Amino acid sequence: MILFILRGTDTSSLKEKLESSSASFKFLNLYGKQLALAYPDSEVEGIKDDSVELMVKTKKSYVLAGNEWKKDPTLVKVKDVEVGGNKVVVAAGPCAVESEEQTLTVARAVKRAGASLLRGGAYKPRTSPYSFQGLGEEGLKILRRASEETGLPVVSEILDARDRDAFVKFADMIQIGARNSQNFTLLREAGKMGKPVLLKRGLGNTVEELIQSAEYILMEGNGNVVLCERGIRTFEKSTRFTLDLGGMVAGKLMTHLPFCADPSHPAGKRELVHSLALASVAAGADMILIEVHPKPEVALSDSEQQLTPDSFQLLMERIKALASVLGRSA
Amino acid sequence: MILFILRGTDTSSLKEKLESSSASFKFLNLYGKQLALAYPDSEVEGIKDDSVELMVKTKKSYVLAGNEWKKDPTLVKVKDVEVGGNKVVVAAGPCAVESEEQTLTVARAVKRAGASLLRGGAYKPRTSPYSFQGLGEEGLKILRRASEETGLPVVSEILDARDRDAFVKFADMIQIGARNSQNFTLLREAGKMGKPVLLKRGLGNTVEELIQSAEYILMEGNGNVVLCERGIRTFEKSTRFTLDLGGMVAGKLMTHLPFCADPSHPAGKRELVHSLALASVAAGADMILIEVHPKPEVALSDSEQQLTPDSFQLLMERIKALASVLGRSA
Amino acid sequence: MILFILRGTDTSSLKEKLESSSASFKFLNLYGKQLALAYPDSEVEGIKDDSVELMVKTKKSYVLAGNEWKKDPTLVKVKDVEVGGNKVVVAAGPCAVESEEQTLTVARAVKRAGASLLRGGAYKPRTSPYSFQGLGEEGLKILRRASEETGLPVVSEILDARDRDAFVKFADMIQIGARNSQNFTLLREAGKMGKPVLLKRGLGNTVEELIQSAEYILMEGNGNVVLCERGIRTFEKSTRFTLDLGGMVAGKLMTHLPFCADPSHPAGKRELVHSLALASVAAGADMILIEVHPKPEVALSDSEQQLTPDSFQLLMERIKALASVLGRSA
Amino acid sequence: MILFILRGTDTSSLKEKLESSSASFKFLNLYGKQLALAYPDSEVEGIKDDSVELMVKTKKSYVLAGNEWKKDPTLVKVKDVEVGGNKVVVAAGPCAVESEEQTLTVARAVKRAGASLLRGGAYKPRTSPYSFQGLGEEGLKILRRASEETGLPVVSEILDARDRDAFVKFADMIQIGARNSQNFTLLREAGKMGKPVLLKRGLGNTVEELIQSAEYILMEGNGNVVLCERGIRTFEKSTRFTLDLGGMVAGKLMTHLPFCADPSHPAGKRELVHSLALASVAAGADMILIEVHPKPEVALSDSEQQLTPDSFQLLMERIKALASVLGRSA
Repeated sequence: MILFILRGTDTSSLKEKLESSSASFKFLNLYGKQLALAYPDSEVEGIKDDSVELMVKTKKSYVLAGNEWKKDPTLVKVKDVEVGGNKVVVAAGPCAVESEEQTLTVARAVKRAGASLLRGGAYKPRTSPYSFQGLGEEGLKILRRASEETGLPVVSEILDARDRDAFVKFADMIQIGARNSQNFTLLREAGKMGKPVLLKRGLGNTVEELIQSAEYILMEGNGNVVLCERGIRTFEKSTRFTLDLGGMVAGKLMTHLPFCADPSHPAGKRELVHSLALASVAAGADMILIEVHPKPEVALSDSEQQLTPDSFQLLMERIKALASVLGRSA
Repeated sequence: MILFILRGTDTSSLKEKLESSSASFKFLNLYGKQLALAYPDSEVEGIKDDSVELMVKTKKSYVLAGNEWKKDPTLVKVKDVEVGGNKVVVAAGPCAVESEEQTLTVARAVKRAGASLLRGGAYKPRTSPYSFQGLGEEGLKILRRASEETGLPVVSEILDARDRDAFVKFADMIQIGARNSQNFTLLREAGKMGKPVLLKRGLGNTVEELIQSAEYILMEGNGNVVLCERGIRTFEKSTRFTLDLGGMVAGKLMTHLPFCADPSHPAGKRELVHSLALASVAAGADMILIEVHPKPEVALSDSEQQLTPDSFQLLMERIKALASVLGRSA
Repeated sequence: MILFILRGTDTSSLKEKLESSSASFKFLNLYGKQLALAYPDSEVEGIKDDSVELMVKTKKSYVLAGNEWKKDPTLVKVKDVEVGGNKVVVAAGPCAVESEEQTLTVARAVKRAGASLLRGGAYKPRTSPYSFQGLGEEGLKILRRASEETGLPVVSEILDARDRDAFVKFADMIQIGARNSQNFTLLREAGKMGKPVLLKRGLGNTVEELIQSAEYILMEGNGNVVLCERGIRTFEKSTRFTLDLGGMVAGKLMTHLPFCADPSHPAGKRELVHSLALASVAAGADMILIEVHPKPEVALSDSEQQLTPDSFQLLMERIKALASVLGRSA
Repeated sequence: MILFILRGTDTSSLKEKLESSSASFKFLNLYGKQLALAYPDSEVEGIKDDSVELMVKTKKSYVLAGNEWKKDPTLVKVKDVEVGGNKVVVAAGPCAVESEEQTLTVARAVKRAGASLLRGGAYKPRTSPYSFQGLGEEGLKILRRASEETGLPVVSEILDARDRDAFVKFADMIQIGARNSQNFTLLREAGKMGKPVLLKRGLGNTVEELIQSAEYILMEGNGNVVLCERGIRTFEKSTRFTLDLGGMVAGKLMTHLPFCADPSHPAGKRELVHSLALASVAAGADMILIEVHPKPEVALSDSEQQLTPDSFQLLMERIKALASVLGRSA
């Protein structure tokens, strides 16, 4: 149950009533509204208080992330870049930050081609402990410098809540990766960091579970979440993962949060990235995540699927043309 | 091993050599070329004959359907409609033929909106024997009459090789459905019918297996096969099946045959069909299959996912706009 | 709706009533009962007739194969071998019949080790048209001779309804393979052949769909169906398919039909077959299907997963010991 | 590359050589052996040092967890309970610790029935933030008290590395849950805690990835890891997850670590738990995890799948009988 609080009223008597009930509750500000979230519904229905403007019952396993109480699509601001509006936002950059030179080269190239955000991995979650694990905080600093030069806000993945301070200082958008999509500890922390979050879908998670994971972030008062479809595990072997655009389209009917699509990881081969990126935009993605490397063949991770700067520039042109016939920009 | 036969030469000595080897072989005409298909490679390599212009070894589990020996994309002609060329071909019509009136209404509407082919089920494969099983041959005749009035060639699904004659007489393109995608008996029969074939991917089949199924048709000398991605079985529950556009894009690099996408079945809900159809075109589909019903809510099958004629018309407009920025028409 | 007919009464007035309703209906004898199957329920509820002893409404998408109307487990007799009773029935034999000698060698060995049925493929469904397609009718005759010598009834897979006569003549149990699990044409034919049927689950089919496929056979008045779990398609790569024993156990609560498990195909490697066979018995399988070849390494199909006769004999001993602590025999 | 160090030799010169190479390396003690782990192989091959007894190249994406260098199965000791030996170890207890009384009741019951370990969730990872999240540290203390009374060592799941101290103090075996199976931060921490670890397979992870996750723990010098198959995500809907016993059996050939099977979670319904538990033992599981609740119907989590104490006692008897014919005890 979501209780909308009348702006400026005293909630102390409501709080008392909730405390004396057996409901769990939490007061929070979200999207400019003062709310009380109380559950289960059965314990809250009978409560009346002058501070409550409206009580909205929700029928789903998620509440704040659902669109029953909030019909308008949420715009997530990453500095001055708006995700979820008319413009299809393209975030591009290397899979992993390998060096300042590599990162700056890519950052300049993707900026020139028209990208709006710079993505890059500083802490890398790798299936094998013997794979390159990323430059860590040094990688974040390199991204920061690239951001300062190009003006592109930075998206980077956090793996450990204890790296919080470095992310608050150096990143503009916090990415929660597929392998941590149900790491509820990390989700709560991301909610508290006060930065917009890019939340990826887990390899074995349904779209509904992705939205439920977002709920953990929203409950901390952070409504700036972009959901990201990045491919799921299926039996098909010609691609690395199966990009589930149907799930994304269905998901957009379930939530007010914007959706990003990552065509690079499911493709696994750069020959497939353009087609899947265009398909993602046509399906309605609000944001696209593309891996770009100055020399993909020598990349320390995901070398098969990163685009060259030239190929990325061509893709940006195609995305812009496509967006225009869909009534959007890019 | 594919042996290209020198046009007009006598192959009797080659045939003798193959017969005296322990190879299996078959002579066939495909795409205007006279070929001998002989395998395994190891038994054929040593054979030399004046009638053989070129021997092409193939490295894959399929030969004729692969693009190692045939680089140019195959154009499949369904009467005067060409699939695999510049134009994105849209086939539309009811899931099942229910009556002459229903079928004619839809046929006229989709023709008016710009569809190129009329699709409709006369024999319906239903998971439950208690579901509507289709009108059978009467359904094919209704489709024929609708075709005669509108000029749209007819695509319809065959379930039983014994219905061969009715399909040869009334249909223009034979559909092999997902549940028969590895019914090798039916595939061979379809190969012999001399009509273009629309071959759907099985719910649990890889793209490679789809191409191998096509090989059964090509081996009968019928090269007019369109492969169709229609969604696979995965754990995701917000859609009926998972449309695997990544698989389609990867498949296009593996074969010279054109690809169709069916967004209606994986969607399972008509709200999702437009987005998935546009995504399919953006991903490079050569043909799109859309279910349209004059009154979807009373349809005898798939009532949740069929579009109204109005919605289809809007979709056609969007597909045309999209195709134009991709350098294609629709 | 299932209508139980009072034994020996005249059903002509019931038939008239059904004909004048808008219900579909079918009279059939199944498990010694005279039944009328009529649907949809809403059209039948009001019908009353003296010949009707009892009307049973069913709540599922399948009726005859469900256990709402038939609580006792069905015993399927393959000649004198009973599947679904106390004894765990083991069917063993080569993946494909390759020669009389190979088949007889295996048949004698599996008989000696304690198998109850001889399995062997005469018509082989192969993903690639270039793989060995089986000996056809000659293979069936070889199986018949092996059966005559050993006394083991024969199970073999049918691919084409047109081979009906050969199967009626030479086989004792008709197998419908995974790739034809939703080939409704073939299911109906199998129902009409009057022989017990071993129905395999499709690679991409749910257990519920498997039971619905059985319904097609039962509707033809053939109640002797054994369902077979043989592994489904998942993302896991260390086995060929994923043996879904959970699905089998859940399925046993949904139907009165017995269940077979095939550990050979999902294993894909003979090292895994023993463990999966024992697990299948422990999970409650009524029948086990094991591939055995005199020299697996030179087998023309599935060479990786077939057991040697010695390994099979050891497995039989282990199965017998296991069955005994489960209160069964083998 | 694993370098076996000659016991008691000075490794300073080896360390120097590794430092001056471009290899990454780590010295560690594992299973009573002094090792140096150095990679990539190409940078290490040329190194020679008197302290090195043997260099073992490994061909897989995991090294320490693989059985190329360590052929004997690893025995994991949880206090005086040995997992991986002759005895099939049963861990049982409530899904979640709800109260001292509930936990003690279950602990006494499962002890009486013959369980060797007490399992119970104190910190609960829940898909929805509105579900019961567990009693936290208080839950661990309750488990400790139940352990003191019954003598059963305690297994409980950790969600956050910051709860380390409580787990070191109150738990005997640390569980990493399915949702954190690739939370590499948590895996490394678990490696450092010096307690045996029960590592569950992620819903969307392959068996190979599970073993790679174990590698993260072993690299910290903690070799006491039990891998746990608990069901994967597939399209099948009659069970909650698909228990992949084939994956477990294949996994046992890839690693020296013991395997646990959890039949409760994939079953999702208590009617299926017995059959799947028996199947797991027959397939070769070294440990079984069973959820038991005094009154499952009022449980705060997983109420559908927990067994009653009586049902658990019956299961223990069946497991013991089964283990005995497999040459094991339970």
